[in-house]
Amino acid sequence: MKPSLPKGTRDFYGKTYQQRQFLINKLKTAFEVFGFEGLETPSFENLSTLSGKYGDEGERLIFKILNSGDFLKEISDDELKNTDSSKLTSKICDKALRYDLTVPLARFVSQHYGVLSFPFKRYQIQPVWRADRPQKGRFREFYQCDADIVGSTSLLQELDLILLYDFFFHSINLPVEIHINHRKILQGIADFCGISENFKDLAVALDKWDKIGKEKVFEELSSKGIKNESIQKLEFFLEENLELEKLKELLNNSLHGKNGCDDIDFILKRVHSLGLKNSLIHLNLTLARGLDYYTGCIFEVKAQNINLGSIGGGGRYDNLTEIFGVKNLPGVGISFGLDRIHLAMEELKLFPKHQSENGGILFFNLGEEEVQAAFSIMLSWRAKGVRCDVFHQNQKFAKQFEYAERKQFAFVGILGEEELRNNLISIKNLSTGEQKTLNPEEAFEWISSFSA
Amino acid sequence: MKPSLPKGTRDFYGKTYQQRQFLINKLKTAFEVFGFEGLETPSFENLSTLSGKYGDEGERLIFKILNSGDFLKEISDDELKNTDSSKLTSKICDKALRYDLTVPLARFVSQHYGVLSFPFKRYQIQPVWRADRPQKGRFREFYQCDADIVGSTSLLQELDLILLYDFFFHSINLPVEIHINHRKILQGIADFCGISENFKDLAVALDKWDKIGKEKVFEELSSKGIKNESIQKLEFFLEENLELEKLKELLNNSLHGKNGCDDIDFILKRVHSLGLKNSLIHLNLTLARGLDYYTGCIFEVKAQNINLGSIGGGGRYDNLTEIFGVKNLPGVGISFGLDRIHLAMEELKLFPKHQSENGGILFFNLGEEEVQAAFSIMLSWRAKGVRCDVFHQNQKFAKQFEYAERKQFAFVGILGEEELRNNLISIKNLSTGEQKTLNPEEAFEWISSFSA
Repeated sequence: MKPSLPKGTRDFYGKTYQQRQFLINKLKTAFEVFGFEGLETPSFENLSTLSGKYGDEGERLIFKILNSGDFLKEISDDELKNTDSSKLTSKICDKALRYDLTVPLARFVSQHYGVLSFPFKRYQIQPVWRADRPQKGRFREFYQCDADIVGSTSLLQELDLILLYDFFFHSINLPVEIHINHRKILQGIADFCGISENFKDLAVALDKWDKIGKEKVFEELSSKGIKNESIQKLEFFLEENLELEKLKELLNNSLHGKNGCDDIDFILKRVHSLGLKNSLIHLNLTLARGLDYYTGCIFEVKAQNINLGSIGGGGRYDNLTEIFGVKNLPGVGISFGLDRIHLAMEELKLFPKHQSENGGILFFNLGEEEVQAAFSIMLSWRAKGVRCDVFHQNQKFAKQFEYAERKQFAFVGILGEEELRNNLISIKNLSTGEQKTLNPEEAFEWISSFSA
Repeated sequence: MKPSLPKGTRDFYGKTYQQRQFLINKLKTAFEVFGFEGLETPSFENLSTLSGKYGDEGERLIFKILNSGDFLKEISDDELKNTDSSKLTSKICDKALRYDLTVPLARFVSQHYGVLSFPFKRYQIQPVWRADRPQKGRFREFYQCDADIVGSTSLLQELDLILLYDFFFHSINLPVEIHINHRKILQGIADFCGISENFKDLAVALDKWDKIGKEKVFEELSSKGIKNESIQKLEFFLEENLELEKLKELLNNSLHGKNGCDDIDFILKRVHSLGLKNSLIHLNLTLARGLDYYTGCIFEVKAQNINLGSIGGGGRYDNLTEIFGVKNLPGVGISFGLDRIHLAMEELKLFPKHQSENGGILFFNLGEEEVQAAFSIMLSWRAKGVRCDVFHQNQKFAKQFEYAERKQFAFVGILGEEELRNNLISIKNLSTGEQKTLNPEEAFEWISSFSA
């Protein structure tokens, strides 16, 4: 039987593993210097913790875990006979796999409310699972990387999150565009267009702007009973690339609109005066982020020079923890799309050539005594951070060379009888072909001069 | 509703999170300098991949994932009525959570056999899940950290794994004892005692030696029909602390015993000549490692100075991948018990005081202009790796101090009107109380002189 992977899942190894570790390490560094604390939550939560949090569609996509032991024990034959899948689920499953990192954060904060200091800034980099139909670029297991600040209404948090995006993308050398908008500006526009009551429809439809285009978005709004006249006004806002000053004037009669513009103004002024290293930032009135729970500023990030859709997003929300009985805890957070960032880096060839696992030196195996001498040198070089290995058998040179190349060692080291006698090592640089015979200290100097 | 965690699971945050990251980073460094490549496999595998690999007891402890969608669709009411839990499981679940890292490794190697170069050296640090009854120190979700070499019979691998144990435990400053034994020596002893056929019983019983003691082990062996005379001979081997030379003599008539002694001799000679930095190594004839699949050298590691049981173990096995149709791939591997290592480090107070997230500086919030200046300094310091943050609101000093202390910042930075005018920063070291007013470059020098 040839084994296989469950659909929508992946193994990570070799170059892909190293590249992902590179990105995750850069993310951790960025989160930590920005003052976020790491959090890891369990892979599964009580089903009751996750249920009712993601809408009907999301609910169906949660992976449930079968209760262990005799899970039918307390279910009568009659109950079994008259049941359907959805009724039975809650009887035989009381745990489910993490669907996102937000509900676990809300659960964590509610549970530890008394002992946490607010603002509580946490980052979390962990896999989540969704029973989605797998397709190109969509997986059933994938990492989310989130940074959230809970318990502060200060706009300095939005400012700092924009700086965090810029810091991280600068650290990996990927130029991005940060799109910013405000749910209250969208509400103000809805007010102006006379469709205040249709705000949710507007947000849901706008969210598809990039995917389905303007015409289809307007068709969807028509189908919700929004009149042509309103749609024309809406078109004006969405197409005109309005300056913030002009927008403020137009929305002056909507309190929502005014507040939204003031927030954006506050943030953008400061961003521009500090300057971004690697990012452009725009006000984008077509940005909506469909999710109900955003209430203030919203963000979305795209890579420059390549069309891959969103590689990050987030926004401000109220009442993160109200579902768990803890009121008045507002928050703001952003996430980083690891898979898409990885793809962008690959396509644009931005990964550095030397990652930690590459390079290093393979010592050839030329016999017992020689190997023992190699081990002794390896121990001291490994302690200095150099990847060292010795071939497992005393085989032909060609065989040992081939292994060194396939495993991407940068150097091979040869300790033969003659070298041993003179306390020397012959070393060959596999990419240039250059070869030197040196004492161990010189040899270490030479090979370390090539590391990243 | 107050939310809670599923039993046997944990959140990791604050100091615990940092300490675990510290250990994981040290593990990764050790694995990589020893030439192991990282591997991550999906959290769930096909149930058919895991089934039949862990014995009856293990099988019951595998967490199964309910099929998504209408999982009862193809099950008739009659079938449902006449079913029991174990029959129904295979009909409604085709995926299960990873139970260990060894079967996923075997699955991976079998699947990619054609493209891998052997010896294939991989490390893997990921959680596994077991539906065990939770108790002190035993969890339903916990990390395994494994390093295996697949496709080499060379004893240099055993040697290098011992050096890897020593390297890692030296890097975290935890002195350990490495116990080593050989399944063939145990077989040789069984031969000598006339209980060759009872080898499995012997291995299973010996595995409990540390937990239940000699008397109970012998009782168990009696109950398997082993005669008193044999048990007396056995006691001699297990109690006498025999020298390897003496053991060789005694087992001279058993081919197994002789081979086992030769292997241990080869390894120990080289280990002693290279020298271990932080570990003692003993031949321990009571070490058995119950698992069927070990066939050669076996290892177990304990912390010195504290009695916590095994903090690592492993050994050589044949035919890792035979279950998946790929024959003749021997391997040898070791694992590190993250939770117990963590506990040992805590109890012995061996964690370094300053971890990456600690330290850093909190700027006080003294108003809009001051905050903007703080951001500008923070951006440059963060780029140099310093954790920087600014308090979110212009509140009383006492409140801002309290936050800095609770979040364990090493310094607070004060940029008031006067400092701004003179391009200076007042900085206070929170642990010593020392305060200085410096220009930004001097300030950076001062705070970086305190980092780890």
